[in-house]
Amino acid sequence: MAKQIRYDHFLHGGDYNPEQWLDRPDILKKDIEYFKKAHINTVSVGVFSWAVLEPEEGKYNFDWLEEIINNLYKEGIHTILATPSGARPKWMADKYEEVLRMDADRTRRFFGGRHNHCYTSPVYREKVFEIDKRLSERFGKHPAVLMWHISNEFGGECHCPLCQAEFRRWLKEKYKTIENLNSSWCTTFWSHTYNSFDQIESPSPKGENALHALTLDWKRFVTDRTADFIKHETAAIRAGGSMLPVTANLMYDYDGLDYKKFRDILDIVSWDNYPGWHKKEEYATAIDAGMQHDLMRSIKKAPFLLMESCPSATNWKPINKLKKPGMHLAASLQAVAHGSDSVLYFQLRQSQGASEKFHGAVIDHYGGDDTRVFREVTEVGEALEQIRETLGSEIWSQAAVLYDRENDWALKDAQGPRNEDMHYQENVQKQYRALRRKGCNTDIISMEHELWDYKLVTAPMAYMFHHGYAEKLRTFAQNGGTLVLSYWSGLVDDTDKCYLEGTPHGLTEAAGIRTEEIDALYDWEENHGIPETGNHLGITGTYTCKNLCELAKVSDAEVLMRYGEDFYQGYPVLTHRNYGKGHIYYVAADMEAAFYEDFLGRVADEAKIQVPLAFVPEGVSVTTRETEDIEYLFVQNFARETRTVSVPEDFEVLYGIESENMAPLQTRVLKRKK
Amino acid sequence: MAKQIRYDHFLHGGDYNPEQWLDRPDILKKDIEYFKKAHINTVSVGVFSWAVLEPEEGKYNFDWLEEIINNLYKEGIHTILATPSGARPKWMADKYEEVLRMDADRTRRFFGGRHNHCYTSPVYREKVFEIDKRLSERFGKHPAVLMWHISNEFGGECHCPLCQAEFRRWLKEKYKTIENLNSSWCTTFWSHTYNSFDQIESPSPKGENALHALTLDWKRFVTDRTADFIKHETAAIRAGGSMLPVTANLMYDYDGLDYKKFRDILDIVSWDNYPGWHKKEEYATAIDAGMQHDLMRSIKKAPFLLMESCPSATNWKPINKLKKPGMHLAASLQAVAHGSDSVLYFQLRQSQGASEKFHGAVIDHYGGDDTRVFREVTEVGEALEQIRETLGSEIWSQAAVLYDRENDWALKDAQGPRNEDMHYQENVQKQYRALRRKGCNTDIISMEHELWDYKLVTAPMAYMFHHGYAEKLRTFAQNGGTLVLSYWSGLVDDTDKCYLEGTPHGLTEAAGIRTEEIDALYDWEENHGIPETGNHLGITGTYTCKNLCELAKVSDAEVLMRYGEDFYQGYPVLTHRNYGKGHIYYVAADMEAAFYEDFLGRVADEAKIQVPLAFVPEGVSVTTRETEDIEYLFVQNFARETRTVSVPEDFEVLYGIESENMAPLQTRVLKRKK
Amino acid sequence: MAKQIRYDHFLHGGDYNPEQWLDRPDILKKDIEYFKKAHINTVSVGVFSWAVLEPEEGKYNFDWLEEIINNLYKEGIHTILATPSGARPKWMADKYEEVLRMDADRTRRFFGGRHNHCYTSPVYREKVFEIDKRLSERFGKHPAVLMWHISNEFGGECHCPLCQAEFRRWLKEKYKTIENLNSSWCTTFWSHTYNSFDQIESPSPKGENALHALTLDWKRFVTDRTADFIKHETAAIRAGGSMLPVTANLMYDYDGLDYKKFRDILDIVSWDNYPGWHKKEEYATAIDAGMQHDLMRSIKKAPFLLMESCPSATNWKPINKLKKPGMHLAASLQAVAHGSDSVLYFQLRQSQGASEKFHGAVIDHYGGDDTRVFREVTEVGEALEQIRETLGSEIWSQAAVLYDRENDWALKDAQGPRNEDMHYQENVQKQYRALRRKGCNTDIISMEHELWDYKLVTAPMAYMFHHGYAEKLRTFAQNGGTLVLSYWSGLVDDTDKCYLEGTPHGLTEAAGIRTEEIDALYDWEENHGIPETGNHLGITGTYTCKNLCELAKVSDAEVLMRYGEDFYQGYPVLTHRNYGKGHIYYVAADMEAAFYEDFLGRVADEAKIQVPLAFVPEGVSVTTRETEDIEYLFVQNFARETRTVSVPEDFEVLYGIESENMAPLQTRVLKRKK
Repeated sequence: MAKQIRYDHFLHGGDYNPEQWLDRPDILKKDIEYFKKAHINTVSVGVFSWAVLEPEEGKYNFDWLEEIINNLYKEGIHTILATPSGARPKWMADKYEEVLRMDADRTRRFFGGRHNHCYTSPVYREKVFEIDKRLSERFGKHPAVLMWHISNEFGGECHCPLCQAEFRRWLKEKYKTIENLNSSWCTTFWSHTYNSFDQIESPSPKGENALHALTLDWKRFVTDRTADFIKHETAAIRAGGSMLPVTANLMYDYDGLDYKKFRDILDIVSWDNYPGWHKKEEYATAIDAGMQHDLMRSIKKAPFLLMESCPSATNWKPINKLKKPGMHLAASLQAVAHGSDSVLYFQLRQSQGASEKFHGAVIDHYGGDDTRVFREVTEVGEALEQIRETLGSEIWSQAAVLYDRENDWALKDAQGPRNEDMHYQENVQKQYRALRRKGCNTDIISMEHELWDYKLVTAPMAYMFHHGYAEKLRTFAQNGGTLVLSYWSGLVDDTDKCYLEGTPHGLTEAAGIRTEEIDALYDWEENHGIPETGNHLGITGTYTCKNLCELAKVSDAEVLMRYGEDFYQGYPVLTHRNYGKGHIYYVAADMEAAFYEDFLGRVADEAKIQVPLAFVPEGVSVTTRETEDIEYLFVQNFARETRTVSVPEDFEVLYGIESENMAPLQTRVLKRKK
Repeated sequence: MAKQIRYDHFLHGGDYNPEQWLDRPDILKKDIEYFKKAHINTVSVGVFSWAVLEPEEGKYNFDWLEEIINNLYKEGIHTILATPSGARPKWMADKYEEVLRMDADRTRRFFGGRHNHCYTSPVYREKVFEIDKRLSERFGKHPAVLMWHISNEFGGECHCPLCQAEFRRWLKEKYKTIENLNSSWCTTFWSHTYNSFDQIESPSPKGENALHALTLDWKRFVTDRTADFIKHETAAIRAGGSMLPVTANLMYDYDGLDYKKFRDILDIVSWDNYPGWHKKEEYATAIDAGMQHDLMRSIKKAPFLLMESCPSATNWKPINKLKKPGMHLAASLQAVAHGSDSVLYFQLRQSQGASEKFHGAVIDHYGGDDTRVFREVTEVGEALEQIRETLGSEIWSQAAVLYDRENDWALKDAQGPRNEDMHYQENVQKQYRALRRKGCNTDIISMEHELWDYKLVTAPMAYMFHHGYAEKLRTFAQNGGTLVLSYWSGLVDDTDKCYLEGTPHGLTEAAGIRTEEIDALYDWEENHGIPETGNHLGITGTYTCKNLCELAKVSDAEVLMRYGEDFYQGYPVLTHRNYGKGHIYYVAADMEAAFYEDFLGRVADEAKIQVPLAFVPEGVSVTTRETEDIEYLFVQNFARETRTVSVPEDFEVLYGIESENMAPLQTRVLKRKK
Repeated sequence: MAKQIRYDHFLHGGDYNPEQWLDRPDILKKDIEYFKKAHINTVSVGVFSWAVLEPEEGKYNFDWLEEIINNLYKEGIHTILATPSGARPKWMADKYEEVLRMDADRTRRFFGGRHNHCYTSPVYREKVFEIDKRLSERFGKHPAVLMWHISNEFGGECHCPLCQAEFRRWLKEKYKTIENLNSSWCTTFWSHTYNSFDQIESPSPKGENALHALTLDWKRFVTDRTADFIKHETAAIRAGGSMLPVTANLMYDYDGLDYKKFRDILDIVSWDNYPGWHKKEEYATAIDAGMQHDLMRSIKKAPFLLMESCPSATNWKPINKLKKPGMHLAASLQAVAHGSDSVLYFQLRQSQGASEKFHGAVIDHYGGDDTRVFREVTEVGEALEQIRETLGSEIWSQAAVLYDRENDWALKDAQGPRNEDMHYQENVQKQYRALRRKGCNTDIISMEHELWDYKLVTAPMAYMFHHGYAEKLRTFAQNGGTLVLSYWSGLVDDTDKCYLEGTPHGLTEAAGIRTEEIDALYDWEENHGIPETGNHLGITGTYTCKNLCELAKVSDAEVLMRYGEDFYQGYPVLTHRNYGKGHIYYVAADMEAAFYEDFLGRVADEAKIQVPLAFVPEGVSVTTRETEDIEYLFVQNFARETRTVSVPEDFEVLYGIESENMAPLQTRVLKRKK
């Protein structure tokens, strides 16, 4: 059942904890005044409020919350209402030990922190259901309330007996017979054969930890458990009568969960973005953040919400640097440029104590509005109003990069050529960056995503191929798509079991090559890709490769580049084969970023990918959002110098300067009829 | 009840473990011969002797100890008698598990090591009381015995149920009501509200570990528990009839306890000093050791004892370097120069086995007196006799640096701008070094210390202000004192709860500035302080700052230096305001050491601090000890080259060369009538 | 009872896991075809097969194994049969918890991994005995079976109550009375005296961990427990009727066991060799591997088996690099050159799943024989057939280097001058390398080894002297041997108790020197050894020393080199004394490798050590194997350039090129009548 998202302006605001200030009505009043001044129209309340909402078991206290919501609403400020399950009250942990997690060593955690409840515990599920339902009954139809924010930043896992039992049930449902599981998991190795499902235990540093298929299924189970918990909370909300949309705030490149599994259980995706601006050059950080925005957007292939971001400096990184003037505005608009319909913060007012008291906030301990941060937040609010018409517009991409969480899990857990670092994310990002340098909208997809939308798909280090994935890739190319494969691909199936008879599995004929060996390089070593004269892409540069060099045997493919050194000098580094109506490329080594800019730039042209600008200067980020009739162009200069960005004449400026000379951190939003 | 310290010469000697050699009377006899040769007049015995003193429960065996004490005394050697509580016999741990500590993960430690008993266990307290009382009865009036050495190097903490119960009692006494505690601790954050004191548990990596106020109170409790244990041991000694003074040997910059709380329970402060000489330039090490001497001296503002030091190389550092010739003598006399009335060693004779068998000793395994170490120890003994008249003289300081342990705890635990390292100690030491370069006696004080003694007080990174501390500082300046404040000051109260309405709390008007933001720098970044032309101190140098740069807003102050780079170029780095009869300076960034030498040198002059020498060459350390009539001047050359040190003509040489040209590691002690 | 080794060709083959492919008869058939092609004549089966051999308690299933063995034997391939005790089935761990180990923190491990069973558990011993006996009954007289491979890579330790009880029994047997133990262990230190053996517990990070004698005896006990377990398995095999020889595969420089204790319980020594070729220059790796070969050979002073090696790249190192062409052949023949009678691999066919699926194998997942690896394995098979006559020939060494595991344990556990790293192995290897550079066969011996075979014995960093060891060394020199001692020698006895009255214990008169102090250097510091003009060895070079510099006092010795810097400039670095008919040298500092090549080269000449070649070029390795009549010369070029190696004219070429110009990685085997 699709829930209608009913806001009609960009959401601007964020996490707000009035329960910390109930004894300070003067401050609560001042907050509203400040919110309005800063163009804040939305607050998220209730995250971590359980101890105030239910101070003793069964004694509920919602009146304060209603008053807060009403007071805000009177001033035009809406509420995103959170369920409080992210942290439970002390009385509950004391009375019902099972609500607390067990670690992998099978010892139970004590009360403390947050996000550390058992997802299986019947008691916890019952308590959560009850309070969620009551919140839904009380606030689920309140005109101020926009949507439900389920719990907070789901993550972690529990190894308690209840979860073990669930895991066994889950495995039995998946494998049906223990023989099937043994065969899929290759348990004959080291005599780890199971006689029955009852014998299976979750991975542990003190026990089984090298049976990759077990670890992989455990991670899948954890995702499914979490999803089931979200569904449980959603059911409680529905049981309380509210049909408002639900979301959960996801996290940056979090590898504890496979977010693609949340596609159908969240009505809208939201996430929390905390880039470390100014640690590296801003453009590098922008690429990194942009890729996460695109990953989140690609889950549902729809606009998302930026649920949290920091209006100032965080307090939980090793070094928490101030954002330089203009950085906050540029970062906020980058979210919108990549598909966000909101700019929300953690947090509106700084808490007075505990672990996040120095985390940046719109209103700090000083408590005035005459601060740089308050001014820059206000600018964001004003900008969002100026570009209001872009709200809800979509992003359509012709290119996609495969970055699959299951592949990430399997690849990292496998003991292979480099156990120090396989550089998976870095490689994905090098390819993403190359496409973004061209100004292509780019999706970040999983193995489950359909491919027929795209002209170009790159699948770097696709170590694991789900059953049927090779065929999906072949069909994509057959029908005219351009497919870029790489080393360390197609080695194992869903259970991390090696494919026999040649890799990349199912693609050796299509690509015209077969992998023979893979060399791991020490960090101080490198090799080079030397272009073949007359290669059809016209590549002429020599590029460095590091870390991993595959030795592949060509059966039927054009060799575009070859290794320059070592005993495999002359072996192919880059090959190409026409396949059906499309192309298949194979990159055999971990090439430097410049190679991908050169190579994928040419490939994108060959694949006839449309880009909004003929030329994108270095450090500039370009994306488009579209409605059926209008194309919106977002141009942002993340370089440290002024850049001249020429835009087609039919674009008119919606936001930002008229001039094509963009100073560092400037943003322009333009539009044209389609 | 003040105990009389009854020695009339510098104590020279140290830890002695004759119980390890009871089967070797020849060696015990040889020891005495060697002690006399090396001018050793004092031994510490009984540390870790419990298993010999009470080999089975209730069976006491003190005769051997009496014989040792008597034999030594016959030869003029006195005894410092230790209580044996630092390590318990195996039979006790086996029979009474509760005497062993529980770790923060609530698992009990096994028998082993030392210093790992529960401070609460009634059994342990009873056993300790009994043996201490019996030792007191037997030896407490023995003419050889100088004082009591309570246990050994107190430290660590216990999380057992008995300690948890005590912690709850302690909290209840402090906060009276749970509402008061909740409010002080800001437990609303993450729903950590307590319904009653019974719900509270000590911090744990497996449970609550981010509620800073809890952690802070737990650390205070641990100090109080330890103090209570010391009082318990003292009571046993008094119950046994001995009225001799008690001490406990403290440790270098130990952050597990707040030593200032021991001021009233120890009759004399003593500590164990093990500098890593020759790792850095000797002067840097001397500053570091000197600051600790001054910290220990400042606890009671009275002479202290150097209870342990190494006559040769230690065996527990990563690299245990030999001391070069002359280093041992210089290091020993440095202790005296800073207020010690003793030079004591760990250890007199090397043990033949176990973990400290290679720790340096006056007599090593070889067993002869024809060693370099023995000769250098003898030189110390001779020197102490030469300067005997300085014994008991005091150190009067006109300058003090605030280095508060509670502040250190809170500052480190808080998640703030830099979680990697805030460099608190380094900053304190940079200021201390600058004052010592001038030749100022300098106290190292806590927030509890009275300030009316001083002309100049620096309070670097005083993150926590006890309630009333701002007023104390204001009063100091009002009455004519010079106060040097810095960035990251006055942010929180005693419970780590943020002050609202501007920082440094209570001083924004007095200092004429208010903090707006603080920038954290990566290790590879830096900024600069550029002097303002015509600043009243006459500073002309440009200095580097790193790590932390505060952005402050001036309301009413002279700006002496400004930032040279970044978006806050031009913001103040150093300000000054006349306040009452005094001055308030504010340093906004983590400045390099050279800045403090320049700045505090000028400030000390402005504050009219009296120093004994007009000029102190680099690498030379100068202190004064005084009686009512006489001023003793200690001059030590820690530079690696000869230094010429001109001394006022009315000083006469008590020890060392006549010449003003001091070779490296030379010491001169001089005196004059006042 | 000596078991006859009955193979008459070099064993070529290795670990084979057909139980992973029982559902793939096509693959099992293909395997045999490939084995024959690659000259593979031996497989090791049964390692980790327990779950297939006894899928349920008491239900044995050996038929598949018999079929495999028979099928292989029909094609001329022999079997090394493993006992399955390296990993137990899940049902056993579930039913009998005691078979699983307890960690040092006294928590039991869960099922998982391998090599983690209790060596004491009566249940485990009974289960192992039963299956071993049955395997022996069924296969112990099978003509295909060559020998028994007991378990796999023994290691680790168990702290369960059963092991604790055994440990106490072991200690009681060793020390008889608790007083004797207390005195030997120096338990008076820190009051750790035991009243009875029942009080003793194994070392633990949560308990006793600084009583070195306890730790040392615990390590000895672990070795004895393991040996006892091997004897238990051997007894089961004998009970089953098989009198075939037994071996166990040992590991590279494994410090968890004292392998010399296995001398009498293994009929033949075997080990697993996985050098990290191409990480450093090949010669350095060859020296490292060669030293381990010599260590393994020296255990029984007899030929050994290379039980495992990798035909390609491993998968468990941080970086798993490919072997360049020719490396595999050179590494395989190096084993033979140092005394191996086999080249065996882990593994013949790659497993399809679990943790070692990417470990190199003769047959990989691709499954073809048209691979580089398969070709290079085949070359090894051919080479072994060419040099078949060298099989069983022995290595006689005139030089030996002491590298004692007990010394290693004691030296590392002791807290001494450098706790970061004493560089023990590096020093041993520097001396070994110097002797190998001369082309000397070199034994790697323990304190138990007899010395009368040798002309030259070096004993670097012999921290521990067993009672009587000083006398053994003296006697060696007295009778004409050349003894090279070094710093940090002869400090403690078997229980890590310091010798009194001067070190090196028992040798101060013989060597004419006595140690006074030892200086530890930081990593950035160095000193130099300056040669004395006219020293009798004719050393003229100045050499660097680092890490440790001893200050020794000469009573009666020639000083050949002296320190160039620091306060001990002029103190001796190298001394010599004629002693009886022999020589005693003393090296006081951690000298660089070049020093040892110079010094030991001269000493070897002085000691009249016979070497096969007048000159060995850098990077070339030379060894000899001999029968009563014939001398075989192995020459290998591990340099990265061609080397000319002149060989006496009476040698004829058995394998390799005729020319004296050897390309990198080339091997020549030559022979001559004696």
